[in-house]
Amino acid sequence: MTEADFLAAVRALPLHPGALGLRDDAARLGRLVLTSDTLVEGVHYLAGDPPGDVAWKLVATNLSDLAAKGAVPVGVMLNYPLRRAAVPPPGDATAGEASPSEGWDSAFLAGLADALTTFAAPILGGDTVSLPAHAPRVITLTALGDAAHAPPRSGAQAGDALWVTGTIGDAGAGLAIAHGQPGPAELLAAYRRPQPQLAAGQALAPQVHAMMDVSDGLLIDAQRMAAASGLAVTIDLAAIPLSDAYRAQAGDTRAARCAAATAGDDYQLLFALAPHRAPAAPATRIGVFASGAGLTLHDAGAPLSLPGALGYQHAG
Amino acid sequence: MTEADFLAAVRALPLHPGALGLRDDAARLGRLVLTSDTLVEGVHYLAGDPPGDVAWKLVATNLSDLAAKGAVPVGVMLNYPLRRAAVPPPGDATAGEASPSEGWDSAFLAGLADALTTFAAPILGGDTVSLPAHAPRVITLTALGDAAHAPPRSGAQAGDALWVTGTIGDAGAGLAIAHGQPGPAELLAAYRRPQPQLAAGQALAPQVHAMMDVSDGLLIDAQRMAAASGLAVTIDLAAIPLSDAYRAQAGDTRAARCAAATAGDDYQLLFALAPHRAPAAPATRIGVFASGAGLTLHDAGAPLSLPGALGYQHAG
Repeated sequence: MTEADFLAAVRALPLHPGALGLRDDAARLGRLVLTSDTLVEGVHYLAGDPPGDVAWKLVATNLSDLAAKGAVPVGVMLNYPLRRAAVPPPGDATAGEASPSEGWDSAFLAGLADALTTFAAPILGGDTVSLPAHAPRVITLTALGDAAHAPPRSGAQAGDALWVTGTIGDAGAGLAIAHGQPGPAELLAAYRRPQPQLAAGQALAPQVHAMMDVSDGLLIDAQRMAAASGLAVTIDLAAIPLSDAYRAQAGDTRAARCAAATAGDDYQLLFALAPHRAPAAPATRIGVFASGAGLTLHDAGAPLSLPGALGYQHAG
Repeated sequence: MTEADFLAAVRALPLHPGALGLRDDAARLGRLVLTSDTLVEGVHYLAGDPPGDVAWKLVATNLSDLAAKGAVPVGVMLNYPLRRAAVPPPGDATAGEASPSEGWDSAFLAGLADALTTFAAPILGGDTVSLPAHAPRVITLTALGDAAHAPPRSGAQAGDALWVTGTIGDAGAGLAIAHGQPGPAELLAAYRRPQPQLAAGQALAPQVHAMMDVSDGLLIDAQRMAAASGLAVTIDLAAIPLSDAYRAQAGDTRAARCAAATAGDDYQLLFALAPHRAPAAPATRIGVFASGAGLTLHDAGAPLSLPGALGYQHAG
């Protein structure tokens, strides 16, 4: 089954009203906000990635969904597979040594401890299961948060300005560094240890009309917010905020800005705010919503055709 | 890492008070009760098991944990892997045909729909990911419930009677039938489609001192309740309630009763109630708590030594 077919079938099941039709990043249960992410080895991370960073990113991506709802983290549930050690062939001299899996689990837990402590998100529960040797790990984290005002993804209004927190493209540049390209630790850290924008989300939630996090790419996520709100959105590529480190690494050309706007993994907050209103957290105004549909791009006024890919398209 | 080592390491992370030290079946967040179970193909179910029954059982086991807390189901989150179809060799005549995975996913969803409708547990959210071809499926369901009084596993008092709802051993006999032994559909259904005791749990919760569900085996679970409560428990094997179908299938010998009491998968409720108090739901009195420690077994007064295995011991 394709993901689209599966999601359509799940939407035909009995849905809780708080599921918001499974069209938002998080579910609502009174003040409680719930979100869940599953990572698959070889799909969402590579077997050779540092396990502590895998854990950090799993926590950070979940908390980023809470940040987009202006929520304060309450706790997390962890569903973790302990892979059985492969049975060594008889007479293998390495028999009796600690398996590589042992080190992976410990390093994962160390990264988890870092992230949970940094973001004040304690463990609430979960499940530990055993996994056959050689099977790819499948790790699930579910995060719960508390929010008085949880803005939807779909609430942008015609005339609203589109804003984004922080800088865009650093994680994309960090991914290239993780793949072996030379570059500064700062960009690699943006990819490996993203920072969920919890404080900004809490400050912004009461004033914005719509908010979501930038996970798959600024352009594709902005297009999704516009589509969910039944509106068109126009973005000024020249306005997209780049870090000094990104400019030093990739330049400040149109191509470099386009790469930043489609790279994903930023975990900044994208939000719609009434015109002439100042945001309650540092952010950059990058576009405007209007009646209609679709995404239009320009570069300081010069019309641009859209890049072939606006961001990461989920196969799953 | 062993499950025990892993759990000890997780307990050393920042824990939410509602996690109850990760020593109960469910976490508490105000009135909210949270529980999560992960199934691994080849570990918790076999690739050849009917997918609809795998889905039903995943829902039922989670809701059974809610039942043990006297909770009314609120909703569930589903984390589901869509396995990629294996690429057929070039020129393979079956290319273009629906993959077997397609049928599995659809049948899983049909069983899920049955269970969620039967137990009024709507979908709240979750995640869908893609899984490499041939990787074992790892499926997580997290259930949320609402409970005014959630009895702990650890609250039994010396002198309390130990009670159990329904009948014990049916699912164990059903497992043997699933493995090919002849037997009635009723016992197979007890294994494949267990019924979480939600109504009984809700009726019992305000009056019991401790409650948990029987998942791994009556004896091992009773021993766990006694240990969590810092008490000893004595069980009368002759009092353990057997169904007519179980007696017809397995007999009513001491060995048959012992098999029933150690088989697991019953998903009945085990609870501690003050002496001379009548339970608010149909149940059978099978034992008594006393100061001390450990499990003692007798057969209508005749002392019995404990069987070698009291139930299913989690490797994970």
